[in-house]
Amino acid sequence: MSQPRIDVAAIGNAIVDVLAHVDDAFLARHGIAKGGMTLIDEFRARTLEKELPGATLAPGGSAANTTSGVAMLGGSARFIGRVKDDFLGQSFLSGLNAAGIHYSTPMSSTGSPTARCVIAITPDAQRSMNTYLGASVELDESVIAPEEIAAAAIFYIEGYLWDPPKAIAAIRKGMAAAKAANRKIALTLSDSFCVGRHRAAFLDLMASDLAILFANEAEIISLFETADFDGALQRVRAWSDATGGIAALTRSEKGSVVAGRGEVHVIDPIVQGKLVDTTGAGDLYAAGFLFGIAHGHDLAACGRLGSLCAGEVITHVGPRPQKDLKALARAHGLL
Amino acid sequence: MSQPRIDVAAIGNAIVDVLAHVDDAFLARHGIAKGGMTLIDEFRARTLEKELPGATLAPGGSAANTTSGVAMLGGSARFIGRVKDDFLGQSFLSGLNAAGIHYSTPMSSTGSPTARCVIAITPDAQRSMNTYLGASVELDESVIAPEEIAAAAIFYIEGYLWDPPKAIAAIRKGMAAAKAANRKIALTLSDSFCVGRHRAAFLDLMASDLAILFANEAEIISLFETADFDGALQRVRAWSDATGGIAALTRSEKGSVVAGRGEVHVIDPIVQGKLVDTTGAGDLYAAGFLFGIAHGHDLAACGRLGSLCAGEVITHVGPRPQKDLKALARAHGLL
Repeated sequence: MSQPRIDVAAIGNAIVDVLAHVDDAFLARHGIAKGGMTLIDEFRARTLEKELPGATLAPGGSAANTTSGVAMLGGSARFIGRVKDDFLGQSFLSGLNAAGIHYSTPMSSTGSPTARCVIAITPDAQRSMNTYLGASVELDESVIAPEEIAAAAIFYIEGYLWDPPKAIAAIRKGMAAAKAANRKIALTLSDSFCVGRHRAAFLDLMASDLAILFANEAEIISLFETADFDGALQRVRAWSDATGGIAALTRSEKGSVVAGRGEVHVIDPIVQGKLVDTTGAGDLYAAGFLFGIAHGHDLAACGRLGSLCAGEVITHVGPRPQKDLKALARAHGLL
Repeated sequence: MSQPRIDVAAIGNAIVDVLAHVDDAFLARHGIAKGGMTLIDEFRARTLEKELPGATLAPGGSAANTTSGVAMLGGSARFIGRVKDDFLGQSFLSGLNAAGIHYSTPMSSTGSPTARCVIAITPDAQRSMNTYLGASVELDESVIAPEEIAAAAIFYIEGYLWDPPKAIAAIRKGMAAAKAANRKIALTLSDSFCVGRHRAAFLDLMASDLAILFANEAEIISLFETADFDGALQRVRAWSDATGGIAALTRSEKGSVVAGRGEVHVIDPIVQGKLVDTTGAGDLYAAGFLFGIAHGHDLAACGRLGSLCAGEVITHVGPRPQKDLKALARAHGLL
């Protein structure tokens, strides 16, 4: 089997973020669930955007954010996802190009506009996401080129991708290509509501082919329907012992817990300034962790790389790193 | 071997707490190290007390606080420690009697007065302790009655007891009695400065006879001189794998991590109100945990009992529980 030429090939919804600071009353007025991700239609997206004239546009999308972190650490990454050939689609691709992320999914020329996510940031730095999937619903198995998947050490899938109807065929095709090339398959559970929609599918994937699982506390508790974090952790360890899988469980200000290979690591956050906007925290944690795995670091070091990347992205508005993560990791003795 | 008749026999400095709310300027003015425990002489104790006319007197002492928690959970406990036959000594004994704690150490009639600890509580609910050991320096091997140690499932020692010069002989005699009766020996590291003073002795005890270790994050990092909590946790797991020992590592608002029997549990705090005074938090965590061990609960349940008891004692001034811990534990489904 040939060596992989890149670190991570990630598939997810290709989304432009519309970020705005709001107060809690805004959430109440618009019936937005705080801290979560809600799927909305185009009409509601336009309504929310109209009320947020000072919003910032930024390329987003969970898996795409992760690839940007991998690239900024000095790794190589590919993103797979569908945009439309419109203004937002072009700006999404510019973001990938600027970060040096491989990308070859053709843009759609007809149908829904490029997906966007209206992100309301409250004064407590929490983000509440409202996603209009748009062109992402056109993501189907045609986006998967098996040789691109085979070229990457890790095939990384966002759980949100179980929402658009045709994406499951793309996931299956990608997983088959990854398995045929003996590559690792990784999954993020994405959001606790997402776990509620797709619990059986996620558990099924874990029982068969999954090598690396990412989840935050609410997601892993929802997945296993346990009373508390420790109950979920025990289920995760049993899964790891049975399958050889590795799990990275993020806990906001409590840091993260990494379980795998018979080990358990309790990793501290790496605070790098005032908490401004938690958008992208989980995505960037995954970036650091996956970079570490692809480059042969031990599990504790992978967790610390995750903490470092997540710690940077929450000090500013927007879901992608602004500082040189490679230099930052070196300064912290992690690279 | 006969069954133990009580749960925990604990040995420690018998101390009356002098608790007062101060501001950070008070700490600066008196050169008090925030969050730690400093040993002071009688003169300095009197000086500090004079500046704190509104202080509250309360029976304290780390191991004694722990016995009060065990008793309030419905368990049985013995305290071993030396007071003088003076006003503070009488009030210390009244506290033990009121809580139903077994006690038979004779009071000293000559020599230094009963020990006291001037505790400065800052607005952030942190407590900074200034301990005058007083009569505690008279604690020697005569306080140990081997049949009393043999009667308890666990012999619990506070790390602070390595400070008074004659206490080490009492510790050794107690450990010998516990081993002869096949009882468990437990230790709390007490304080990170205490670890700095007695690191070699603590490591030595862990390598030979220790069954249960309590430490907070700063203490365990200091013990193993690691860069971070996870590094210390890995050393703790290696210790546990090698000796069969169990460790409960407390982390303030991050909860605790329990390692032993090949298991690792990440236990949440059980918040029961506004944080007022952290005095006694570690002592009461140990109470819940030891009660759980003595009554055959699994490690996760022991950790939760610890969280429950610590969570109660930090909602009010003073180092001993005020609510009925047994009823509280039942209400939380822990008993």
